[in-house]
Amino acid sequence: MSHLAARKQPLINRIRRIAGQVAAVERALEEEADCAVTLQRLAAVRGAVDGLLQEIIAEHLQEHVAHPGLSDAERAEGAEELIAVIRRYAP
Amino acid sequence: MSHLAARKQPLINRIRRIAGQVAAVERALEEEADCAVTLQRLAAVRGAVDGLLQEIIAEHLQEHVAHPGLSDAERAEGAEELIAVIRRYAP
Amino acid sequence: MSHLAARKQPLINRIRRIAGQVAAVERALEEEADCAVTLQRLAAVRGAVDGLLQEIIAEHLQEHVAHPGLSDAERAEGAEELIAVIRRYAP
Amino acid sequence: MSHLAARKQPLINRIRRIAGQVAAVERALEEEADCAVTLQRLAAVRGAVDGLLQEIIAEHLQEHVAHPGLSDAERAEGAEELIAVIRRYAP
Repeated sequence: MSHLAARKQPLINRIRRIAGQVAAVERALEEEADCAVTLQRLAAVRGAVDGLLQEIIAEHLQEHVAHPGLSDAERAEGAEELIAVIRRYAP
Repeated sequence: MSHLAARKQPLINRIRRIAGQVAAVERALEEEADCAVTLQRLAAVRGAVDGLLQEIIAEHLQEHVAHPGLSDAERAEGAEELIAVIRRYAP
Repeated sequence: MSHLAARKQPLINRIRRIAGQVAAVERALEEEADCAVTLQRLAAVRGAVDGLLQEIIAEHLQEHVAHPGLSDAERAEGAEELIAVIRRYAP
Repeated sequence: MSHLAARKQPLINRIRRIAGQVAAVERALEEEADCAVTLQRLAAVRGAVDGLLQEIIAEHLQEHVAHPGLSDAERAEGAEELIAVIRRYAP
C-alpha cells in the first residue's frame, strides 16, 4: 500500500477543494464576471495547487526516499522521480 | 461587456481541461495510485494553471490597462488589480 | 529619462544587496559549507530576485503602460514587453 | 567532506555567472538603460537562480537523503532540510 493511502483523506479533501475553486473560475468566465475577480480566483487556485504539491513532494520524500527500511534501489528510484518533477516544474 | 466575454470560449475550454486534470489527481489519490503518478499529474495541473494565468494576465493588461480609449482612472485601476495579483502570487 | 531613473536609488540598493547574497552563496560553495546552508542562502537569493522583479514589473506597468499621456503605440509596446517577460518566466 | 566539495567547481562557475548577470542588472539601473532591458536581464537572473537551485536540491537529495550508507537519522535530517526549503520557496 502506498504511503498516500495511509494519509489520503486530507489530501483528497484538499484536491476536492481545488476542484471547487476551479469550478468557481469556470463560472466566473461563463458569467462574464469582472476580469479582476477571475484573475484573483485563478491565482488562488495556483496558490492551493502549489501548497498541495509541496505537501505531496514532502510525503514522497519521507516515504519513498528517507524512510528507514527501503532498499538502496528504492531510494534511488524515489529520488529520481522527485528530481524529475522538480526539474520540470520549478524548484 | 468584459473583454473576457469576447474571447471567453477558448478560456472556458482551458479551465474545463484543468478541471479534468484535477479530477484525474483526485482519482489517483482515491485509487491509491503510485505516488509518482499523482505527483506528475498534480505538477501538470500547476503547469496548466500557470499557462492560463499568464493568458488572463496578458488579456487584462491589454484590455484594462493598455487599451486605447480607456480613461486615466480606468487604466490606474486595471494596473492596480494586476499588481495585486503579481505581488501575491508571483512573478 | 526612463521612469527607473527617477526612482533608481532604492532599486540599485536592492540589486546590490542581491549581489552580496550571491557572493555569500559563492563563499559557501568555495568553503565547502554545509549543503543545507548553501541551499538556504540560494533560496534567499531567489526570494530577493522575485521581490525585485515584482517591483520592476509594477513600475514598468505604471510608467510604460498605465501612465497618462502615453500614446496608444507606447502603451501597446510597454504591454508587449511585459507580456514577453511574464510568458517566459512565469506569472 | 560535503558532497558539494566533490562537485563544487561547476556549481561555483554557475554562481559566478549569476554574479555577472546581477552586475549587469546593476549597470542597467545605474546607466538608466531601457526599462524593458533591465526587466529581461533580471528575469534571466531568476531563471539562472532557479536552475542552480534545482541542481543543488537534486544533489542534496541524492547525497543527504538517498545515498546508501547514511543512517536513518541522517536521512531524516536531510529530508527535513529539503522540505524546509521547498515549503518556503516553491515548488
